[in-house]
Amino acid sequence: MSAPTRVREGDMIGQPVARVDAHEKVLGATVYGHDFELPRMAWGKILRSPLPHARIVKIDTRRAEALDGVIAVATAADTPCKTYGFQSILHERLADKMPLERDKVRFIGDEVAAVAAESEAIAEHALELIHVEYEELPAVFDFHEADRPGAPEIHEGIADNLIDSFDYGIGDLEQGFAEADVIAEGTYFSQAVISAPMETHQCIADWGDGRRLTVWSSTQMPFLLRNHLAAVLGLGDGDVRVIKTPMGGGFGSRMEMHSIDPICAVLARKARRPVKIVYTRTEEFWATRFRHPIEMRVKVGAKRDGTLTAMELELLVDSGAYVAQAGGVARVGAVNAATLYRVENARVRSRTVYTNNPYASAFRGYGNTQGTFAFESAIEDLIAKLEIDAVDFRIKNGNRNGLPTHLGQLIHSCGYEECLVEGAKAARWEELRGRRLREGSRVRGIGVATVINVGGGARDQGDSDASGAVLQMRDDGSVSINAGGQEIGSGGNTVFSQIAAQELGVTLDRIVVLNFDTDVMPWDIGCHAQRNVFCAGNAVRAAAVEARGQLLAAAARQLGVDPEQLSLRDNAVWLAGAAEPAKTIGEVVWAEHFRPGGSFIWGKGFYDPPTVRTDEHGHGHKSGAYSFGAQFAEIEVDLETGRIEILKLVAAHDVGRAINPVGVEAQIEGGVMQGVGQALYEEMVFEDGRLLNPAMASYRMPTAADAFPIESIIVESDDPEGPYGAKGVAEATCVPTLAAIRNALLDATGVSVDVLPLTPERVLAALDEAGVSVR
Amino acid sequence: MSAPTRVREGDMIGQPVARVDAHEKVLGATVYGHDFELPRMAWGKILRSPLPHARIVKIDTRRAEALDGVIAVATAADTPCKTYGFQSILHERLADKMPLERDKVRFIGDEVAAVAAESEAIAEHALELIHVEYEELPAVFDFHEADRPGAPEIHEGIADNLIDSFDYGIGDLEQGFAEADVIAEGTYFSQAVISAPMETHQCIADWGDGRRLTVWSSTQMPFLLRNHLAAVLGLGDGDVRVIKTPMGGGFGSRMEMHSIDPICAVLARKARRPVKIVYTRTEEFWATRFRHPIEMRVKVGAKRDGTLTAMELELLVDSGAYVAQAGGVARVGAVNAATLYRVENARVRSRTVYTNNPYASAFRGYGNTQGTFAFESAIEDLIAKLEIDAVDFRIKNGNRNGLPTHLGQLIHSCGYEECLVEGAKAARWEELRGRRLREGSRVRGIGVATVINVGGGARDQGDSDASGAVLQMRDDGSVSINAGGQEIGSGGNTVFSQIAAQELGVTLDRIVVLNFDTDVMPWDIGCHAQRNVFCAGNAVRAAAVEARGQLLAAAARQLGVDPEQLSLRDNAVWLAGAAEPAKTIGEVVWAEHFRPGGSFIWGKGFYDPPTVRTDEHGHGHKSGAYSFGAQFAEIEVDLETGRIEILKLVAAHDVGRAINPVGVEAQIEGGVMQGVGQALYEEMVFEDGRLLNPAMASYRMPTAADAFPIESIIVESDDPEGPYGAKGVAEATCVPTLAAIRNALLDATGVSVDVLPLTPERVLAALDEAGVSVR
Repeated sequence: MSAPTRVREGDMIGQPVARVDAHEKVLGATVYGHDFELPRMAWGKILRSPLPHARIVKIDTRRAEALDGVIAVATAADTPCKTYGFQSILHERLADKMPLERDKVRFIGDEVAAVAAESEAIAEHALELIHVEYEELPAVFDFHEADRPGAPEIHEGIADNLIDSFDYGIGDLEQGFAEADVIAEGTYFSQAVISAPMETHQCIADWGDGRRLTVWSSTQMPFLLRNHLAAVLGLGDGDVRVIKTPMGGGFGSRMEMHSIDPICAVLARKARRPVKIVYTRTEEFWATRFRHPIEMRVKVGAKRDGTLTAMELELLVDSGAYVAQAGGVARVGAVNAATLYRVENARVRSRTVYTNNPYASAFRGYGNTQGTFAFESAIEDLIAKLEIDAVDFRIKNGNRNGLPTHLGQLIHSCGYEECLVEGAKAARWEELRGRRLREGSRVRGIGVATVINVGGGARDQGDSDASGAVLQMRDDGSVSINAGGQEIGSGGNTVFSQIAAQELGVTLDRIVVLNFDTDVMPWDIGCHAQRNVFCAGNAVRAAAVEARGQLLAAAARQLGVDPEQLSLRDNAVWLAGAAEPAKTIGEVVWAEHFRPGGSFIWGKGFYDPPTVRTDEHGHGHKSGAYSFGAQFAEIEVDLETGRIEILKLVAAHDVGRAINPVGVEAQIEGGVMQGVGQALYEEMVFEDGRLLNPAMASYRMPTAADAFPIESIIVESDDPEGPYGAKGVAEATCVPTLAAIRNALLDATGVSVDVLPLTPERVLAALDEAGVSVR
Repeated sequence: MSAPTRVREGDMIGQPVARVDAHEKVLGATVYGHDFELPRMAWGKILRSPLPHARIVKIDTRRAEALDGVIAVATAADTPCKTYGFQSILHERLADKMPLERDKVRFIGDEVAAVAAESEAIAEHALELIHVEYEELPAVFDFHEADRPGAPEIHEGIADNLIDSFDYGIGDLEQGFAEADVIAEGTYFSQAVISAPMETHQCIADWGDGRRLTVWSSTQMPFLLRNHLAAVLGLGDGDVRVIKTPMGGGFGSRMEMHSIDPICAVLARKARRPVKIVYTRTEEFWATRFRHPIEMRVKVGAKRDGTLTAMELELLVDSGAYVAQAGGVARVGAVNAATLYRVENARVRSRTVYTNNPYASAFRGYGNTQGTFAFESAIEDLIAKLEIDAVDFRIKNGNRNGLPTHLGQLIHSCGYEECLVEGAKAARWEELRGRRLREGSRVRGIGVATVINVGGGARDQGDSDASGAVLQMRDDGSVSINAGGQEIGSGGNTVFSQIAAQELGVTLDRIVVLNFDTDVMPWDIGCHAQRNVFCAGNAVRAAAVEARGQLLAAAARQLGVDPEQLSLRDNAVWLAGAAEPAKTIGEVVWAEHFRPGGSFIWGKGFYDPPTVRTDEHGHGHKSGAYSFGAQFAEIEVDLETGRIEILKLVAAHDVGRAINPVGVEAQIEGGVMQGVGQALYEEMVFEDGRLLNPAMASYRMPTAADAFPIESIIVESDDPEGPYGAKGVAEATCVPTLAAIRNALLDATGVSVDVLPLTPERVLAALDEAGVSVR
């Protein structure tokens, strides 16, 4: 960890503080959903399809129902048979999944029936007693095949299996390539990887008196879960209450409603008891979402001086059996790759298709991870043909403050160049690049890749990208923040607390953040798209500013002075120039409560960024701000084994302003490690739609033992719209890691490997083919 | 049940509605504290003194600690040895109880040690293994003896055992009695009775990460419990979070912190695990609070025309071993009795003393129940000597709207006379009084008694009598009310919901009331003194009115009209004169959330009544309003057995405005039955400080089998300060019942029985003595 680049003295903003929830988490006192039980609670288990594509002929649940200890067995017949989908607000076609399928199963793992019983063991046993008669259908697993005429029809009426396509162009592509002195072209593949947070998905559902459903779920977007649950169960939104249990990690996998949620609700309704379902680790792999496998064809051209003249990008996305967030992911991937550089001639296309594989969805980066891997790889292949330095090329063609992108994004703060310059310095880029230092069979290289990412939300859930917050000052000297913004494991509550502390002069230990109950919280679209600090932080700030005004007015009245004479710090009110505080803040609030005709101190804030929804071509200023970054990977490749070792990774990210620098560094380090996992180790291996490695032993995530020095560089570009200048940082940190490592391999060996992960086998094969391996 | 006297059509206010929590309670879905468990929870049990007064010489906990399954054993050494007391905000002398006593025990049941174990059975067993060495001290159980010089000193430094005394006079008492044509004098005794709600007291305490205490407790006053817990544990108020579990019945017994709460917290801290303590029914009798036994000497004089010329009242109150709320109860009893009638010459005195009995505290009526029993009995004895009708006497001397009482209470609404007139009509008073209709050994009579009670809070907890509320309108068309006001089993949440429904045009099923968490709720002093509807209702109304303004403004903007053209009803916004609604309310709020630069709808209200704290003489306008009532009991007495049967009871109560008439009737019926319990059946029987009947089998509460026709008459005096004119009704309903029955016995037999309860034995002895029994 490097020191943060800028800390304002005596100020909560920019102070590196420990997470407000660190203590309880370290001590094991946090009550996660896994830990939580309700009186009279039953346990649920889900029966999944063993076939990748089949018609459901008959389900016989009688033997299961007769088993001692079984309370309820549910099939589609117990549901309204409505379909759901995360993006259904945009188009009803995007809702294609039933909680329990009625007519067909479309992947191995598809939900067919469920049991609630007195114990998990009984429920598990009961699953075996459910007899499902299937009529097997031809299946398709390869996304190229699925995209061809005559492929098996997976969803009725969608003969071509095409979920979404996208085609955007500016300028004259042909002329752009004609102007180019050199052209690079390649096909890149980004594999299926899963975030696999430590806590598997779980749900508890309770109907209370039968009229209203309460669901405990670890969700990034409590209000959307509420709405989606209500819709799929045929209820009004107000009939559902979602209580978010504490989250260790979201990473996008907890953005959307999973079938576990409505199934749990249906079981609880039928059982007339609370029901809890907890996924096993195997189910977590089988039944939750993962990063879309995407094949990307990229063609780029530049003049000899490094001016980018044309770019072409074509994505083919394997959504798997259902759509989930597929179309959105493809567009985000395409838009970000397309706007990383300024270019006058561009064409971006994508096709997203169904297959009979398990289905993918959101994961940190949301398409950008894949798209940027491909694009920054192709750019590097292009640069290799030019006589310009890779850093200089990027500075020359990169985004600049004040210049809109060709897709209409308005760049009001841009630390892109500073990320490259500072990152190159820290990584000793000039010294190490192109050296191919060799020791025995091992050779060194360095690679760079960069990123643009939404840094202040994305108006892609209809017309709201808003966050509400209310803030109460209490007579015990403490502050309650009731925010719609979430804590999804990334430190949001710490930042909200710092903002309140900054405005109100209270210390962090006096602040409680309440943001887990849709009956209590103000509206918030949810936590995604790097919007938590930006949008919800702005709302918390507005609420705190209002409360500050009320507090100062009360204190001034109590002290018989003007509010302008007062300041707030160290949980106290101070008269200008005084050596001792005039009153503690708790005393001021207490006196407000304890005066005849009293009052309370309560501020409100609602923030919706000045953005627009993108049009069908992805055009529009869709985020309140844009974040930038550059990563430099220094690696050593063993030419005998193909094994890559990372010696050091420098990650420079423009976060606008680091409200909590150690929080930003934690995001960078975590993101980099997730990027490294995808670059080198992780892969969900499917065979005929069956996941072959649904376990931590066979799905190889990097652990602490795989760590290496990461140098985080925080670049502060002071965004005019963000709270105190801050922009989001959570997603972008894993995005450039993939290409930085791939480009370092290129630097070390001159060999391009364009399929992830860069396993020793794959690298060695490429080195063999290029004749540079040592055997 | 009679029909409510006035219902405004088409209006939520005055509509008889089912309680909003009825459904979940009837279905058993409510999760009470008894039902609730936390992960890793241990169970606590409390060791109590077997002696009424003793020095603690030594406590040896080693054998208990060594028992398998015991997690922690606590004594005073594990506490900061601070004392607590509900009224300690007024004077530190009123804090005299330690959670676990260190030096002395003062009653049989006093808390000495506690155990946390893996199960209740183990904890119970461990209690037996704790060896406490006591040095027994002389004890005093009779409050007259305790009040005499030379009595055993129960609390160090309080040699005379005197907790509190009160002496108030106006006019010239001697002259007042000289002006009287007749004088009545008597000594009355009101016994110890307990509310014994179905759920015994329980507590769960959890220190989470060790820095902050969360307590789940069924409390009427969450914020005061927070403050008292913090103080007795040596914490800041902000270090404690109180979550109120659902309450079946409070009745005052859940107003104050009981030792169970800090003991549970201390055990949980030592155990480093959540701990739950649940009182057995026996402990509920032994260790919770009950109504103070009070002996009351009353002397009253009147002119022959019925003009009251003088009154004298002297109370001797047995507080038991600790003070709890004793002084307050005595003053409330004295003040209410003293101001029931207008009189120019009065003297009221009280002495409240310690004894080595278990200690008493708040119970519905809070002293008024006892004082009014005595005073209305003496008045009836006086009337018996005059030639004026008992109803006429009361109308002649009773309070009137616009006239302050001699203790400075400002009467802005007064239905006293209407209660008497309407009650007499319904009870057929003219027809039945003085008739002594006889059938066999049974003779009939009718009695009346009346009440004045605070009807809008009581500023007796320092200078706050305030309630805060915030109200959120949600995009699902629902409303969340976050109120400091409580649901203590009396229907508060239903009234809050009606108020929101009234202002916002939503139906009751769309309203959620959140009022259980001190981290979430706005400030509220708590639920007592008939202030919930009055104070918290006014706060909810103010919040709803603010939200209404925002909602109409948003709707007007969306519809392109003026807000004045719009109205709200049936969950929708209507244009004036339109046959169909313009939009649902949910649509309006949704559109506010889902517009770029949107907003939310969130109102605030804070209400503190225009009252003052009473001075040391009890003088002052201490409540926002005053409630009145008159009850008429028609009884039959068996002259052979002394058994009293109630044939009918008419209860006419001035509630200002009945927001929910069925709720008011439920309060009246419940209050009457509690009054009847005290009048006829219930008594805690002590022998040398030991409670002889700590069980439902031996403590005879009336059940449904003992019910009789109760006719509730709601008198609406439209208070100018209360919400929609409403005043409180909860407490006053049990107050006049005692004397009404006692006066009916006098009417039937000519015999005064002045000691409660009026058991067959006691009545028969009095009839024997008067020579009117039939044997």
